Amino acid sequence: MKRTVFFISDSTGITAETLGDSLLAHFDQLEFEKVVFPYTDTPEKAHAAVDRINQAADRDGAPPIVFDTVVYEPIRAIIAESRGYILDIFSMFLPVLDKALSIKHNLNVGRGDKATDNQNYQNRINAVHYALDNDDGGNINRYDQADLILVGVSRSGKTPTCLYLALQSGIYAANYPLTEDDLHGSSLPKPLQAHRNKLFGLTIEPRRLVAIREERKPGSRYASITQCEDEIRMAKSLFSRHQIPFLDSTHISVEEIATRILLETGLRRQGKSVV
Amino acid sequence: MKRTVFFISDSTGITAETLGDSLLAHFDQLEFEKVVFPYTDTPEKAHAAVDRINQAADRDGAPPIVFDTVVYEPIRAIIAESRGYILDIFSMFLPVLDKALSIKHNLNVGRGDKATDNQNYQNRINAVHYALDNDDGGNINRYDQADLILVGVSRSGKTPTCLYLALQSGIYAANYPLTEDDLHGSSLPKPLQAHRNKLFGLTIEPRRLVAIREERKPGSRYASITQCEDEIRMAKSLFSRHQIPFLDSTHISVEEIATRILLETGLRRQGKSVV
Repeated sequence: MKRTVFFISDSTGITAETLGDSLLAHFDQLEFEKVVFPYTDTPEKAHAAVDRINQAADRDGAPPIVFDTVVYEPIRAIIAESRGYILDIFSMFLPVLDKALSIKHNLNVGRGDKATDNQNYQNRINAVHYALDNDDGGNINRYDQADLILVGVSRSGKTPTCLYLALQSGIYAANYPLTEDDLHGSSLPKPLQAHRNKLFGLTIEPRRLVAIREERKPGSRYASITQCEDEIRMAKSLFSRHQIPFLDSTHISVEEIATRILLETGLRRQGKSVV
Repeated sequence: MKRTVFFISDSTGITAETLGDSLLAHFDQLEFEKVVFPYTDTPEKAHAAVDRINQAADRDGAPPIVFDTVVYEPIRAIIAESRGYILDIFSMFLPVLDKALSIKHNLNVGRGDKATDNQNYQNRINAVHYALDNDDGGNINRYDQADLILVGVSRSGKTPTCLYLALQSGIYAANYPLTEDDLHGSSLPKPLQAHRNKLFGLTIEPRRLVAIREERKPGSRYASITQCEDEIRMAKSLFSRHQIPFLDSTHISVEEIATRILLETGLRRQGKSVV
């Protein structure tokens, strides 16, 4: 049976979606049609959302689930009149937090995802540009500025991980692709020698690497199983020889790789420590 | 007064953090020390978290707030014994959702942020590589594949927005920087002509652009107020002349720019429609 789920916010809707997706993942017996209503910040938009919710209720023959993170109460009141099953996040949590913190919440203050003029935000954007400038070993003379240098063979997941760390956590992450010379040599590649404590390795199962490289250069030596197996074996041996911590990116997402790296390296993100 | 906040998860902790940050933003009178415990998936790690929570309780002289998104109940039970003020997200929501969906949730199924072998995930990673390959007008012969082409002057916010759209939503977003020739010409730049319906413009306040460019090339003509004012004026005029929708990136974050673009263009993300 198909059920419709709405994510309604007067901002981006990221909180409603993140929470909702992670809860609904535990109902894999059902199929969900997901609809996001960001920037629902006027009575007109709220009424439009209510219409859509009621239409879905008729179509599904069951109330849609509504994850509501609208801050402004009069807008929430309109949405509450719909025939959806409303999960009003702020109403559920804020009174509880008021009690726990012995202070009254203040709805009029800037929300987390608003401010672009704060240092954390600028830092994230600068980190994105840094990751781009230092992608693929492009700019090894800026490794001094790096918080982290990801090391691995081509297409082992370095680039998306660097960009995610930059965007999400403002981490300055460079990446260094291991060349054939690096893999056959016994010493640490020269550009990395002064930065041993910033290195983190990524590895990947050879068969997965073949599949990824095949998409890029079908039928090439680069994508052959022999080549991929050799590269991965030598990369792992290099990591071990030089005590570079590493992890296997085959079955974990960019979000998980990034989290595990922060956990292992103890790098601090934007005002948060990772234990 | 300083209060400590813990985000505890047996996965990345993204849900706990996203929800917690957005709620705590409404308590700007307080200062928070935030600590993330990802991958808390053994009794040992749970006990370590409890120790940290209790230490913080002693130090703060008040119970820490704990956002707990651990799925496995026995681990949650250990955390519940701490002296923190526990917000147990799954316990709060899953019974409510069971009722709303008339079905019992299943804790043993894969969580949203796990699967790397599904098509959505591969699509996001491919979109990241596409964004990189098509950054800065680098590869105009692949615009056929684009879902979206962001157009704007240098440093108006195109690149971080493309990467965010790729990572978060699997959108294939290219970006095209307007050159002096483009800005002075009366027609739409040639590489864009076949893709009018994919274009979206970004503009920015000249003073903000000066500040950003100054960091990159201090004292240059490129960063001068006259140059920035001219470029922005001509870019806006080009957008209007060719009916390219555009928005001002000065005061909104990458997350907000991306959400507004999805909203205006109606581009569908990973199985979700944006209304």
